[in-house]
Amino acid sequence: MNFDPQTLRYDEKGLIPAIAQDHASGQVLMMAWMNQDAVAQTLATGRVTYWSRSRQAFWVKGETSGHVQKLVDFRLDCDRDCLLLLVEQSGPACHTRRQSCFYTAVREGDEVELMAPLTDQA
Amino acid sequence: MNFDPQTLRYDEKGLIPAIAQDHASGQVLMMAWMNQDAVAQTLATGRVTYWSRSRQAFWVKGETSGHVQKLVDFRLDCDRDCLLLLVEQSGPACHTRRQSCFYTAVREGDEVELMAPLTDQA
Repeated sequence: MNFDPQTLRYDEKGLIPAIAQDHASGQVLMMAWMNQDAVAQTLATGRVTYWSRSRQAFWVKGETSGHVQKLVDFRLDCDRDCLLLLVEQSGPACHTRRQSCFYTAVREGDEVELMAPLTDQA
Repeated sequence: MNFDPQTLRYDEKGLIPAIAQDHASGQVLMMAWMNQDAVAQTLATGRVTYWSRSRQAFWVKGETSGHVQKLVDFRLDCDRDCLLLLVEQSGPACHTRRQSCFYTAVREGDEVELMAPLTDQA
């Protein structure tokens, strides 16, 4: 079946959540949002492109930081209202320079930091 | 730092997206929503509990199907507006009886089904 970005279910703001997962390690890196054009652009270019809700603009991941996400596989869920992107991540995914945005765990009622920021070499 | 569910950033409907990932295989299983009480209940019981937007009610995952999610680790992202739950999943996570809700890929413009529904034994 031919894929049409229009057939995804976007929320009332025209957005759909997109989870980025490292294709090799399986680590969940981040969650951000796409609109229909960002979906089309991601598929057309192979470079993961979100929609920045704060800037109200396309956000080609890594365009300024260099920490790009190359699309390896594009998946959608049973309800067509969430995306899972398997990616090849250059450098850290998080703006804090951690590998993943999910670096805080809650264990026995306390917040625990699981990852340190990567150094410049990363 | 002691964790307080109030310190998470919920959307205008009081909800936060929660990604469930199989703790052993790393497979991303599903994405659903929680409100503050669902977060507190999940942490208190160790059984993943979402907020059903369609039913406007708590959704103790697996309560009717038996396909429960036992919480292994609870994580939050840098913006505190998305959760990652590492879980031990009993049976299939998806209501279609597939292991994961993300069973459809888009490859070369076509939708491709990656997983079949599990049989009754699963």
